[in-house]
Amino acid sequence: MQNFSFRNPTKILFGKGQIGSLDGEIPTNARVMITYGGGSVKKNGVLDQVRAALGGRTVLEFPGIEPNPTYETLMRAVELAHREDIDFLLAVGGGSVADGTKFIAAAIPFKEEPWDIVAEGTPLSEAIPFGVVLTLPATGSEMNSVAVITRQATRDKLPFSSVLVYPRFSILDPTTTYSLPARQTANGVVDAFAHVLEQYLTYPVNAAVQDRFAEGLMLTLIEEGPKALAAPEDYDVRANIMWTATLALNGLIAAGVPEDWTTHMIGHELTALYGLDHAQTLAVLYPATMAVCRAGKRGKLVQYARRVWGIDNPSDEAAIDEAIACTRDFFESLGVPTYLADYGIEANAIPQVIDQLRRHGMVALGERKDVTPGVAEQMIALCLKADRSTGLNARAT
Amino acid sequence: MQNFSFRNPTKILFGKGQIGSLDGEIPTNARVMITYGGGSVKKNGVLDQVRAALGGRTVLEFPGIEPNPTYETLMRAVELAHREDIDFLLAVGGGSVADGTKFIAAAIPFKEEPWDIVAEGTPLSEAIPFGVVLTLPATGSEMNSVAVITRQATRDKLPFSSVLVYPRFSILDPTTTYSLPARQTANGVVDAFAHVLEQYLTYPVNAAVQDRFAEGLMLTLIEEGPKALAAPEDYDVRANIMWTATLALNGLIAAGVPEDWTTHMIGHELTALYGLDHAQTLAVLYPATMAVCRAGKRGKLVQYARRVWGIDNPSDEAAIDEAIACTRDFFESLGVPTYLADYGIEANAIPQVIDQLRRHGMVALGERKDVTPGVAEQMIALCLKADRSTGLNARAT
Repeated sequence: MQNFSFRNPTKILFGKGQIGSLDGEIPTNARVMITYGGGSVKKNGVLDQVRAALGGRTVLEFPGIEPNPTYETLMRAVELAHREDIDFLLAVGGGSVADGTKFIAAAIPFKEEPWDIVAEGTPLSEAIPFGVVLTLPATGSEMNSVAVITRQATRDKLPFSSVLVYPRFSILDPTTTYSLPARQTANGVVDAFAHVLEQYLTYPVNAAVQDRFAEGLMLTLIEEGPKALAAPEDYDVRANIMWTATLALNGLIAAGVPEDWTTHMIGHELTALYGLDHAQTLAVLYPATMAVCRAGKRGKLVQYARRVWGIDNPSDEAAIDEAIACTRDFFESLGVPTYLADYGIEANAIPQVIDQLRRHGMVALGERKDVTPGVAEQMIALCLKADRSTGLNARAT
Repeated sequence: MQNFSFRNPTKILFGKGQIGSLDGEIPTNARVMITYGGGSVKKNGVLDQVRAALGGRTVLEFPGIEPNPTYETLMRAVELAHREDIDFLLAVGGGSVADGTKFIAAAIPFKEEPWDIVAEGTPLSEAIPFGVVLTLPATGSEMNSVAVITRQATRDKLPFSSVLVYPRFSILDPTTTYSLPARQTANGVVDAFAHVLEQYLTYPVNAAVQDRFAEGLMLTLIEEGPKALAAPEDYDVRANIMWTATLALNGLIAAGVPEDWTTHMIGHELTALYGLDHAQTLAVLYPATMAVCRAGKRGKLVQYARRVWGIDNPSDEAAIDEAIACTRDFFESLGVPTYLADYGIEANAIPQVIDQLRRHGMVALGERKDVTPGVAEQMIALCLKADRSTGLNARAT
């Protein structure tokens, strides 16, 4: 096991009716800005519940934070907050709203050019406090210190992180997810599953309990994901997915183990260039990551095959083949296509993505820093379309 | 899944060499009191490492905190702290030292009779800050807000809890556990395993990920426990046990599920009356808890049999029998005897324990509050000695 430091100060209020707890979590004299997205929180009544719970406070609203929240939009929120002397933010929505709100919280007191927080990783000295009312389980942003921000003008989609942008609290009421479109439900399951893989599918370091926890998260998503699509208003199913997605990226399973994140970094470029949903990029890329990095990930791939997919084929190589196929089938079964061709993207994408990776300095990715642009190119090539001739999709040859 | 609130603010610094991090975690102008136990931290060099890391600060020491820390001893520490104007505590040792230090931290600023914190559950309005350098993985006290304190004069052993007694930080260096006697290593594994059972072996509430995490903790203890006895200086084994014991009782697996704690409450009385090690009482009682509460715990007992012990007997009843036997065999395999007769305790203990339970108001224990003194009596009767005639030890009849 590797040495680690772990502290996660976010308070989670979980369950039906918890939005009413807001009143106890935000100072009564706070000047609050509610941030949200495209209006689904208006339609499903969540925004009304939030407004009711905040009764008596000075409350402003900033709608219109888009999926893959943009610097351009968020800076308008920063200006509004300055103008109105806002001192508490409340994100109401999914990971994009939470991520965008982290950037707003960091940018409000920032003295220099705020884009440097993202592009240069300039450390923060302060951030204004904020909470989250989560309505889409997926990114884990509600209980971590990371955000991914896009600059529209330059098609940059990049992460930043600071201990100052942990939410003070996050409210997770599974009933707010009943009305999610199937596509967003499925995307959330794929995203959470990929988060676990990024922290699990590296090389073994004898971190027994982290492995067991990661496997438990994946087993839960495999069991509960399809149920959520079949029965969107099953409370326990929604609750299990919501809590699992949070635990998938709150620092817990990363403590003491190597991490990868190759798939996410390449996926960010696909989203920035072609507008694919974040989870779609992960569903496309992960089988290829497994195939191309098969040698380096062999030990964990075998464990993944045995413990997560229950594959008892005595041949380790055959078990790995089956596990990669199971992963792809799982994503497809949720309705998320796993080839670039399914999204109308062809081979000319390869040089474009590679150029972007180079431009962002992503030239040594992965747990061993050995995923060069050349290796990334192999991965993307495997994602183009199904090659039925091999008998296994995207099987390494 | 049940509604829950979860927040754990303790910072964990994990791994070899982390004691050196102390300097960054305690204010340089703090007046520190180091609390410890019987001197093992002197022998194994941990206290020297701690002193070196605290260099430059005003540091006092309070040794002599015993296993099952007593009010009588701890109040002497409180007096010393008052006299010397101590404003930071550092517990160096196992769960007893951590628990005792929580009481000291709470009692120093407490205006009334400090025993009321324990006996009456009087809420705290403040506590002085403290950290932990853990040397014995077992109780989880290093990352939770609970302590168990004994009043020697009256043989009361009782828990108290407050959000004000989370450690500010805990340092977990697995190498500090290399020199533990086998008995303490084994006790720690049993204690952590029993903590998981208290939060898992109740009734199902469709809390899929909590169940998976609890099972992962137990599987890790089953795999790593015997290795720690066989190879006491295997770093990864010690690391796995140390982190597992912390995660077994830091609030995570309890979030959203019912809890039992019958076995602990009866066990506390056995320790207070007869001086058994805490873990010994759990090893003795848990098979009996499973047998006597078999009907109420049936669903989870079957799941425990299948997922933790891998029992594939098609009969659920037979699988439960096997799982209870496996539990007992596991404790025995670690060298912890599982019958009261092994500790020289006979049937006359039953009325004494029941009297104590009544005196402490423990008359409706368990996840359904249906463990009356009568039920507790049945449990203790099953613990007296092995009944080979049934073919299964302590099998419910």
